[in-house]
Amino acid sequence: MAHISIIGTGNMGQAIAAIAGKGDHTVELLNTSDADKQVTGDIVVLAVPYPAVEDVLAQRGASLAGKVVVDITNPLDFETFDSLTVPADGSATAEIAAALPESRVLKAFNTNFASTLASGAVGPLATTVLIAGDDDDAKARLAEVVTSAGLAAIDAGSLRRARELEALGFLQIKLAAAEKVSWAGGLGVVA
Amino acid sequence: MAHISIIGTGNMGQAIAAIAGKGDHTVELLNTSDADKQVTGDIVVLAVPYPAVEDVLAQRGASLAGKVVVDITNPLDFETFDSLTVPADGSATAEIAAALPESRVLKAFNTNFASTLASGAVGPLATTVLIAGDDDDAKARLAEVVTSAGLAAIDAGSLRRARELEALGFLQIKLAAAEKVSWAGGLGVVA
Repeated sequence: MAHISIIGTGNMGQAIAAIAGKGDHTVELLNTSDADKQVTGDIVVLAVPYPAVEDVLAQRGASLAGKVVVDITNPLDFETFDSLTVPADGSATAEIAAALPESRVLKAFNTNFASTLASGAVGPLATTVLIAGDDDDAKARLAEVVTSAGLAAIDAGSLRRARELEALGFLQIKLAAAEKVSWAGGLGVVA
Repeated sequence: MAHISIIGTGNMGQAIAAIAGKGDHTVELLNTSDADKQVTGDIVVLAVPYPAVEDVLAQRGASLAGKVVVDITNPLDFETFDSLTVPADGSATAEIAAALPESRVLKAFNTNFASTLASGAVGPLATTVLIAGDDDDAKARLAEVVTSAGLAAIDAGSLRRARELEALGFLQIKLAAAEKVSWAGGLGVVA
């Protein structure tokens, strides 16, 4: 059983809270303005847009030591809508991991549209959460939360794969914004 | 009706030749050693591994002027199996487009495993070919070849999106090599 804190109450935060609540886990959902409330989870999901991550880390970074921290961001450049804002050979997750050397940082959920997390389905496929990170135990614990809610989880490799997951997330958002795929569809995984 | 030349007779070349032959199109399949044979297609698919592209361009670059040229490569670093060999903010397709300024260069098929091109299916989904490039007419012509064979095609945006398609192709190969997905499965598209 895991105790999961989710920071951010938007569509993604709510959808991930619903997933975590389906298994034998406990969940706390915190608003970014709840800076005075302590984060009690063993797994902490940063369910905030990329530009808000810096403030969350400044407020709460020290309290995240020893925890599994999950980055779900897609760091799009919203001015150009033509690239990510992180270095081309890096990722938002790598930046967060560098800022939180005492935490076990994972990338997950960024390739899942919120509605597919809520429905558990991408068309005829079970929604699959791709998880990247350097700590196998942390990945296994997050995967257990995901699969206990009836979704699929796949270990997508090391933290370096966050670069490819962010590219995938970016491409999927571009395709949905261009109405090439639905926000209830997108890229699904056939194991 | 299109006349399609495919350079490269491996799994991918054969699968793409079969697709092109299903519609009302004509196909020629050339081996890379057929350097003396003229390329007659309006659409030319470079169905060779990335390291072989340079030689093909050296041999045939001038004859590709005016044609639609399709790059299908995934430029993996096979020594580390941990990155691509092209610049992180670029793509193999961008390199090829720079080398062929008189051609209309597209990225396509690199996110499709050969068996899913042959079967037309990724699990319960129709196989979808993602096509990126800067020439809308060229993309529409290739999409017509793909859809006339019963597969789906999606315009994935400008040539800059080849970077994300190569990241997706790399991730998918990594997942299959790690037996997280099947070589007959992988990432499918739900429109």
